[in-house]
Amino acid sequence: MFFTALIVLFVLSGIAHYAHFGTLYEFIISAAAILFVAGFLGKATESVAHYAGQRLGGFLNATFGNAAELIIAIFLVKEGLFDMVKASLTGSIIGNLLLVLGLSVFLGGLKFKEQRFNVQLASHNSSLMILAVIALVIPAIFISTEHYSVEHSKTLSIAIAGILIVAYILWLVFSMITHKDVLADVEESTPDKGEHPAWSMRTSILFLVVATVMTAFVSEWLVGTLDSLTDKFGLSELFVGAFVIAIVGNAAEHSAAVMLAMKNKIGAAVEIAVGSSLQIALFVAPVLIFVSLLFGNTMDIVFTPIELASIAVAVFIAKSIAQDGRTNWYEGSLLVMVYIILGFAFYLI
Amino acid sequence: MFFTALIVLFVLSGIAHYAHFGTLYEFIISAAAILFVAGFLGKATESVAHYAGQRLGGFLNATFGNAAELIIAIFLVKEGLFDMVKASLTGSIIGNLLLVLGLSVFLGGLKFKEQRFNVQLASHNSSLMILAVIALVIPAIFISTEHYSVEHSKTLSIAIAGILIVAYILWLVFSMITHKDVLADVEESTPDKGEHPAWSMRTSILFLVVATVMTAFVSEWLVGTLDSLTDKFGLSELFVGAFVIAIVGNAAEHSAAVMLAMKNKIGAAVEIAVGSSLQIALFVAPVLIFVSLLFGNTMDIVFTPIELASIAVAVFIAKSIAQDGRTNWYEGSLLVMVYIILGFAFYLI
Amino acid sequence: MFFTALIVLFVLSGIAHYAHFGTLYEFIISAAAILFVAGFLGKATESVAHYAGQRLGGFLNATFGNAAELIIAIFLVKEGLFDMVKASLTGSIIGNLLLVLGLSVFLGGLKFKEQRFNVQLASHNSSLMILAVIALVIPAIFISTEHYSVEHSKTLSIAIAGILIVAYILWLVFSMITHKDVLADVEESTPDKGEHPAWSMRTSILFLVVATVMTAFVSEWLVGTLDSLTDKFGLSELFVGAFVIAIVGNAAEHSAAVMLAMKNKIGAAVEIAVGSSLQIALFVAPVLIFVSLLFGNTMDIVFTPIELASIAVAVFIAKSIAQDGRTNWYEGSLLVMVYIILGFAFYLI
Repeated sequence: MFFTALIVLFVLSGIAHYAHFGTLYEFIISAAAILFVAGFLGKATESVAHYAGQRLGGFLNATFGNAAELIIAIFLVKEGLFDMVKASLTGSIIGNLLLVLGLSVFLGGLKFKEQRFNVQLASHNSSLMILAVIALVIPAIFISTEHYSVEHSKTLSIAIAGILIVAYILWLVFSMITHKDVLADVEESTPDKGEHPAWSMRTSILFLVVATVMTAFVSEWLVGTLDSLTDKFGLSELFVGAFVIAIVGNAAEHSAAVMLAMKNKIGAAVEIAVGSSLQIALFVAPVLIFVSLLFGNTMDIVFTPIELASIAVAVFIAKSIAQDGRTNWYEGSLLVMVYIILGFAFYLI
Repeated sequence: MFFTALIVLFVLSGIAHYAHFGTLYEFIISAAAILFVAGFLGKATESVAHYAGQRLGGFLNATFGNAAELIIAIFLVKEGLFDMVKASLTGSIIGNLLLVLGLSVFLGGLKFKEQRFNVQLASHNSSLMILAVIALVIPAIFISTEHYSVEHSKTLSIAIAGILIVAYILWLVFSMITHKDVLADVEESTPDKGEHPAWSMRTSILFLVVATVMTAFVSEWLVGTLDSLTDKFGLSELFVGAFVIAIVGNAAEHSAAVMLAMKNKIGAAVEIAVGSSLQIALFVAPVLIFVSLLFGNTMDIVFTPIELASIAVAVFIAKSIAQDGRTNWYEGSLLVMVYIILGFAFYLI
Repeated sequence: MFFTALIVLFVLSGIAHYAHFGTLYEFIISAAAILFVAGFLGKATESVAHYAGQRLGGFLNATFGNAAELIIAIFLVKEGLFDMVKASLTGSIIGNLLLVLGLSVFLGGLKFKEQRFNVQLASHNSSLMILAVIALVIPAIFISTEHYSVEHSKTLSIAIAGILIVAYILWLVFSMITHKDVLADVEESTPDKGEHPAWSMRTSILFLVVATVMTAFVSEWLVGTLDSLTDKFGLSELFVGAFVIAIVGNAAEHSAAVMLAMKNKIGAAVEIAVGSSLQIALFVAPVLIFVSLLFGNTMDIVFTPIELASIAVAVFIAKSIAQDGRTNWYEGSLLVMVYIILGFAFYLI
């Protein structure tokens, strides 16, 4: 069933792209295709993760989980659509912190009166998110000073990108090597005996490669439609980047996190939502700066005030809600309401 | 005693108003009258609350406790004095979070070395206050973008007002129905056997209606004096709105919260101060937007940068102090000092 | 050894100054001298503190520990270099909160898996830092309003300076008199039997006076070189003030805090780093305002946006990391990384 839909949609969106079906059809078909392709990528990653062990698996899961976003963004960078890249990074961060986390907490909270997760992990996650906000806010504030030239801004962007990648690597060392016991979830330490992977190790790795390639193709086809689409519907680049692309690109995380929350594994759901945001901010964004450097046209790390405000706002409300390691339906509804406010504000632009 | 003063002052301020005693006399008399009228309203509400049960009573208390502010603000909206409305909402929020909470914590702390209250309630309160800050900051940031027209700003204001009212209703459901046990104060669960209401149920309801009507009248007379008063003393609308009106309008809460804190019921005092701020931000402000819509001249939700800064500052210091569920005199003094800094800064404008 | 180097460098930097060796040599010699002078001042203070008892000692330690910064800053105020004063205050605050605290936590964390300190102290420290940020942010926001004249800004600055000094005095009363037991570190309550002071009480007091005088001289010589130094190397006043002066002036605290952290006394290290920042913000800065008033040319308390952003950023990340009373190497590395980002951004100006 799943595989049939996957292949049909993949082929169809390829045909739509090369035969020029028209912007709207191409967008709809490739958006549908990316949902399945991202789902396939997610399943393949999980399966590989199963063989690689829990910790290394978590890392693979996180990295390949954002592969779709990264690949979409590289195509945007190549076409010089820096504003849309930043909008889609913004959208990924707020989408994960507000919509994915919010829905997980809300729906999990409807079923369970109170859900708990590791407080220490929550505390480290929020410190890391604050680092990310700082790294994005500092250049925006300094660039507004009269002394700062465009050249300075690019140099600073590259330096910050380097520091963020170092921070991310140190975080992996910290959370997977030196302090992995401290950050473990109580419930997660009990192994899920019942869950067997659907595929053999060899098949899993093959599927992971195939899924990544498919994601790359569909992403390019999807991005190709956006320019004329925004014109057609009078939508701003910002809204498309921050909400449409972000929701489509994160579809796999959305469903996974919500399902985990409803099985009372709120810790794992938080990990997906917050961990994915962190990876976008600390890894994907810096990598894109370096990628743009390779393409010979450096993208700076200066986000617009409304993007920064949205990210900061998302981080503060998520931090406030997650820091006690307990969640309930009302806290989830608060996150979703902030997402709706931001969505509405971006839509009106 | 109380009733004599109430009636004398009420009648006197009516005479002063209709016989045009002169701005200064009218202001002094109606300001004195409103203290008694607000106190009467508070007592009537408490008495009704006693018969209605603790939870529903709490809701009635909160709602009628802000009735005076709401009524004053409606008259200001009707006269199109939007700037003064926003200043008085700002003043109510910071007055409750800094002055009322600060004095309660300070004076309670002089008597008791450490006072404690429910940590979970504190945590939810601060998440809600952050939602309120976000809801006020987002429009202010988006409106400063070139793309945003006045029309957009009004549409966004109405949308946000709607979301805030939903958030407030969900909060009532959460705190009074689904999770009322989680948020209960330990000491509050023991009933105060000694306290009997002064009035019968029937009298209480009658008095509640009478007190609300009296508040409406005196409020209108008070507001009528403000315009010429600001001219006379060279005070800014902002200072009058944010400090004079807010202190007068919150007089009842002030005294109630301080008295509770000195009886070591700091949880109840926090509830009044923080709960009242929340109601202003999540209920009174949005209702005023819809009221202005009915009057045919939509007020937007865009506050000035200094109002937003004041509210944000008050929320952050209050959150930082209240989040551990423990208070002492020094924390109270910090809150009061921030209030003095803000008061001085507004006075100089 | 230490005394020989101290005296040689002190004399040498005096000669360099009066014989006009040239800016660069004068700077290097006096910078080297100030490291030893500051170290001498630190030792003398500690020794006096030993005789005066732990609490009073802590106060003396904190006060004389910032004496070098205060004295340098008074000379800068006298010469009217207000921008450099503010830059050096900014640098002291962020240097203590990010570099000193960061290195202590990082190096301590490499040796011990987790280090703990008094949570209540952490909570009060962060509330105080938020007061400091508020006191600096409010004037900057109000001054940007059209209604605010330079005169208003100075009046507000003096009022805020007064309030901050009151806050600091109340903090001393709170932490040393009314609540000293609540804030005590668990380990600190066990006396260090092994540590005997090197000097007698009389010698200690004499050395304290001598060290303060020496610091005053070397500071003046150092400050004298800065003007032409900034020109020579094309460094901005901001960078020199916020990073060069701050690192030199805080050398004593740096080494003390790191050494304590590596002895697993992270509470004492946090006390030095955070306590020193607090004293800069709540005591040194306000005193400088009053000093400038005496010199007849009032310095206002209005910091530049990038200085405010740096301070706010440092406070938020430090608060986020310190608030749970536990530290590890990764948290230390985050603080240092934020310091590097800020240093790089200031360097490019």
